[in-house]
Amino acid sequence: MSSSRYDPRTFKALSFHDAALRFGDGTDTPRAYLERCLEMIREREAVVKAFVAMNDAGARAAADASSARWRAGRPHSPIDGIPIGIKDLLETKDMPTQMGCEAFAGNFPKRDNAAVWALREAGAVIVGKTATAELGGSHPPATTNPFDPARTAGGSSSGSAAAVGARMIPAAIGTQVGGSIIRPAAFCGNVALKPTQGAINRGERQATSMSTHGVHAGCIEDMWQVAIEIAERAGGDRGCLGLLGPRQPPAAQRPGRLILLETAGWQQLDAGSMSAFEALLDAIQHAGIELIRRADNPLVEKLERTLANAASVCNAITGWENRWYQRNLVNETPGGVSERAKVALAKAEAMTVADYRSALMDRKTAQTSYAAIAPLADAVVTLSCPGPAPLWPGDEPGKPLSPRPTGDPVFNFPSSMLFAPAVTMPLMAVEGMPLGAQVMGQPHEDARITQIARWLLENLAPVVAA
Amino acid sequence: MSSSRYDPRTFKALSFHDAALRFGDGTDTPRAYLERCLEMIREREAVVKAFVAMNDAGARAAADASSARWRAGRPHSPIDGIPIGIKDLLETKDMPTQMGCEAFAGNFPKRDNAAVWALREAGAVIVGKTATAELGGSHPPATTNPFDPARTAGGSSSGSAAAVGARMIPAAIGTQVGGSIIRPAAFCGNVALKPTQGAINRGERQATSMSTHGVHAGCIEDMWQVAIEIAERAGGDRGCLGLLGPRQPPAAQRPGRLILLETAGWQQLDAGSMSAFEALLDAIQHAGIELIRRADNPLVEKLERTLANAASVCNAITGWENRWYQRNLVNETPGGVSERAKVALAKAEAMTVADYRSALMDRKTAQTSYAAIAPLADAVVTLSCPGPAPLWPGDEPGKPLSPRPTGDPVFNFPSSMLFAPAVTMPLMAVEGMPLGAQVMGQPHEDARITQIARWLLENLAPVVAA
Repeated sequence: MSSSRYDPRTFKALSFHDAALRFGDGTDTPRAYLERCLEMIREREAVVKAFVAMNDAGARAAADASSARWRAGRPHSPIDGIPIGIKDLLETKDMPTQMGCEAFAGNFPKRDNAAVWALREAGAVIVGKTATAELGGSHPPATTNPFDPARTAGGSSSGSAAAVGARMIPAAIGTQVGGSIIRPAAFCGNVALKPTQGAINRGERQATSMSTHGVHAGCIEDMWQVAIEIAERAGGDRGCLGLLGPRQPPAAQRPGRLILLETAGWQQLDAGSMSAFEALLDAIQHAGIELIRRADNPLVEKLERTLANAASVCNAITGWENRWYQRNLVNETPGGVSERAKVALAKAEAMTVADYRSALMDRKTAQTSYAAIAPLADAVVTLSCPGPAPLWPGDEPGKPLSPRPTGDPVFNFPSSMLFAPAVTMPLMAVEGMPLGAQVMGQPHEDARITQIARWLLENLAPVVAA
Repeated sequence: MSSSRYDPRTFKALSFHDAALRFGDGTDTPRAYLERCLEMIREREAVVKAFVAMNDAGARAAADASSARWRAGRPHSPIDGIPIGIKDLLETKDMPTQMGCEAFAGNFPKRDNAAVWALREAGAVIVGKTATAELGGSHPPATTNPFDPARTAGGSSSGSAAAVGARMIPAAIGTQVGGSIIRPAAFCGNVALKPTQGAINRGERQATSMSTHGVHAGCIEDMWQVAIEIAERAGGDRGCLGLLGPRQPPAAQRPGRLILLETAGWQQLDAGSMSAFEALLDAIQHAGIELIRRADNPLVEKLERTLANAASVCNAITGWENRWYQRNLVNETPGGVSERAKVALAKAEAMTVADYRSALMDRKTAQTSYAAIAPLADAVVTLSCPGPAPLWPGDEPGKPLSPRPTGDPVFNFPSSMLFAPAVTMPLMAVEGMPLGAQVMGQPHEDARITQIARWLLENLAPVVAA
């Protein structure tokens, strides 16, 4: 099967929870499920390039052990046996952790990230490491979009999004600092959860104040189940309560009212994406859900204004927080870091602690404005990305570097900056490519927005634009 | 010079800020200052064992460069040229980072921790790595107390405290999760700052929610100057404002009123330490400072009660936060981790995420109670340790492990749990050994408690008990 144009009305992503219903009586097994995944990987990986390392033998052994547990009626969890990909920023004891960065070529700490540890405890089958933009930044890996190899899969969780979009695996772990889960998931037709800041234990990856682990999946049931199984075992980040919510995927729930946030991305929408999203908003209203826009309420207008400079605030905060790490790296291995990363480092090194404090205060102000809109509606709805995945022909020697080869995170900075949970839903297609919309909640409302996203996914007809 | 009994009336710790006054005209130089330090290290290190790695050549080169800057009238900062020790938990690009742990024997990442980077930018001379209890826990290094080699120097910042107490260096970096700065500093006659949680950038050491870098020093001026020079360059932890306060040591300021907190350590005080501290409290009152005790105000009584279980709350939080790291380590290198650490890991592995959340809520409750007393007084005063440094003969083969070979952090858990800044002052001697008292403030009142500690140090006669 080659890549093909995307139609959300007919596209059927992989799911695991329904297959697991047949594991008990042996009509299906985790090992057989894994083999189907490996077959699809063999078929598509040469073009998609989602993985940077695989452990077929380890995955098969884990799947066999899982098959035996299901047969005995004693799975470790509902996700026992799920084949899953791990973004190559997270340490895994059985595969290298190279972070898409030349300086880490061959890096192989024999350790599991806290979330990886929890997944293994839950019985998950760690299939491989998925490609990441360099160090989670903007310098892209080789991954292509599963629906058009001329386009980016997004980033920085490029491989996780592409592997799920290509039906290679039912779920994958991504991470987001600015827009690294929701954007690639939206480009690749995934559902995905970027949880409340701190909701899933990042293990050794605690260096920045607004990054999270999250889950890419083919369906919302698997998305939630993977997230909650990790959090129940490894908790959240240090000092955080961790993901709150039920041990099973929460039921669909129709919201009464949603706030539409336009944010800074609104101005740059292409006509097709704008009309697709407006059609989706119409469908939401036709379903009896009230929609509040910025003109309808001064608190929404105020929030929109505090979010106007979200990109620069996010980049300042993250740049400052990464600067010693990246400076050490450049000093140690000058040739091992991309020019894109060096440009970002130079900006960070021009900052003072006063600049950083100022950005923190901007973030705090936005969070305060966001809390103020909580009573107005059940959740927020907005786009997940400013259009379908852009074309990415690669850097051209001698030309200036494209600033955003993995697409623009403009619609993702707000949830990152607000520490807010977000779920992206593959509810639209534009130019034959996926286009996601997201539901955002207040911090700790991960389960609530999952319920709302589930309702929208189950009750709205996807929008297909020209 | 051998170790000798301690008398705070005559003991003269090293200081740097006053020596620096003579660097401009060349009557003294950073290189000459360093040589005096190295001479003292040669004299005392065989017994004190404060250092686990030295870089004499690198230190001399840095001191020569500093001498040239002072001669040219262009020092990088007031601490340009200060010889300083770095606790061996922090990465240094020019020395191994072995963390007092067999599993890290030979570990040598060629990187500087953010605080070390900032110190070098300020011109500081990194002399060596100071001994730490294993991984910052309770398994002790070989370090002995500079005033009695039969006693512990405290821990986990054992070497930093001992090196300053032995007049080897004027300042050293320590870290505290439970009681690892204030306690050893108090045992070794240092002044020391355990800053507000997050006030000094921990760099790669962000794994736990209540650990801080801090400064051991011979005098309060150097203590503040070192802390502020780091924070102005490297800021605080990610998401934190960083140390707030003046670029110069804040002037002494007499408090009008102090709250005495007894906390859980009060019940275990020996008679000598109790009478020494009561004599100090008398001196405080004789200086015209009002003292509020728990019986005087129900808010203080309520705070005392929320702090009663501080040890178990702190140990639960830190144990949970360290469990994946330590489990990975034990799995990788079963023989590389002490039995003491394995016992702590087993306790942490028996916890659930619900237990962790419960401990976080206890911490939050205590913080709320602590905020409530802010209007009652200028600061809090309490002991820094429950008596002078205890004897430590070493583990005896075949016997049960001593639970606290580096002394009891009972008086240190409160400031750690409250995210509160604390300054310990060498204002007492008991059994010929130092005994510290501490001033604690509300979060971000680091400068205020430094002012108060400075006033007490400059205006109270030290108490010498039998």
